[in-house]
Amino acid sequence: MVLTNADLDHVAGLLSLRERQPFKLLALPPVHAALAASPVFNVLAGDVVERVHARQGEMYDTSPGLKAALFPVPGKAPLYAEGEDPAIGVDEGQTAGILVEAGSSRLAYVPGCAALTRELRNQLEAVDVVLFDGTLFTDDEMIREGVGTKTGRRMGHVPITGEGGSLDMLRALPARRRIYVHLNNTNPVLIEGSPERRIVDEAGLAIARDGMEIPL
Amino acid sequence: MVLTNADLDHVAGLLSLRERQPFKLLALPPVHAALAASPVFNVLAGDVVERVHARQGEMYDTSPGLKAALFPVPGKAPLYAEGEDPAIGVDEGQTAGILVEAGSSRLAYVPGCAALTRELRNQLEAVDVVLFDGTLFTDDEMIREGVGTKTGRRMGHVPITGEGGSLDMLRALPARRRIYVHLNNTNPVLIEGSPERRIVDEAGLAIARDGMEIPL
Repeated sequence: MVLTNADLDHVAGLLSLRERQPFKLLALPPVHAALAASPVFNVLAGDVVERVHARQGEMYDTSPGLKAALFPVPGKAPLYAEGEDPAIGVDEGQTAGILVEAGSSRLAYVPGCAALTRELRNQLEAVDVVLFDGTLFTDDEMIREGVGTKTGRRMGHVPITGEGGSLDMLRALPARRRIYVHLNNTNPVLIEGSPERRIVDEAGLAIARDGMEIPL
Repeated sequence: MVLTNADLDHVAGLLSLRERQPFKLLALPPVHAALAASPVFNVLAGDVVERVHARQGEMYDTSPGLKAALFPVPGKAPLYAEGEDPAIGVDEGQTAGILVEAGSSRLAYVPGCAALTRELRNQLEAVDVVLFDGTLFTDDEMIREGVGTKTGRRMGHVPITGEGGSLDMLRALPARRRIYVHLNNTNPVLIEGSPERRIVDEAGLAIARDGMEIPL
């Protein structure tokens, strides 16, 4: 099990893995710290679930033929641990991307990312497949739709479009597949044929779907 | 939302109720303390979810026509907060039963109970419907089946049969319906026609099932 952050949508499923099935839990130290701060995660008994504190960039064998490394990306503390005035866009390991290696093929999985940095671009330029944070199409989408009070950036998610959006960066990458993941249900790219979907299609990017398989 | 204890099977569902839907969370103080000790439950935002610290035996309006009160029963701390040498069978409010009133009808819901006390019997003698802890048929059932290392009593659940089992107590109650709930998947009463099921049937007790409706 590899965790890219400790927000609820990434860690709640751990609570269903408590039937004494042995596994290793690989994450950067700040994510382990967030789990350790909530005793409810002790249902993952220490004698069956090994919590592996990953070192940034170090490759770990995760399953036969697959290796994974974690690298920090700009993010923030989980919502439930934000406190009064959270720092947004820090890259201290609260949020990470996963670099997956299968033989000579490489994939980067970055479901949350608050800003596009030079370091991130370097990582993504070196892989064959990129799965990237597609939470919102525009930064103020949830506010305009009346379903939330926060921008995407405030939630730790860089939007697809607008100044500093991810589309321009992803379009310029040499990866053979570039796929948006972690899409919020307000994101109009989920609607086939929508103007926003066409923009993504024409940029040569794809939208993830349930059951998608990615040969490496 | 009314909680009878803070074990994971009783509280994990709270993490799915975080979409800013207002509700009140009614529990005895030790259960609230267990939730407060795990910051992950802060996803239930304080401005939409009111945590009501119930006083033992006090009736609260829960929904139109229904009132509920919590009363402590013998139990223990949640598994994830047990520590080295947990006290089993204490009635300090870690485990509770719910007394539900609808007009002049009363129902008691006791999904976990580590021992049968005089106080508990008094509560159950005064209601029309009893839903009671039917986790295991025999105390060492999980050990004998090779699926666990603990007795029912160690887990805070009095067995249906054996010395001090719940069947004899429930059989003697005047309630018009007496129903076993919270059944472990090793419990042979779940198998229609099994010798154990016949024992429960012949005692005039019922086994809960999904979709069961109980008119009061």
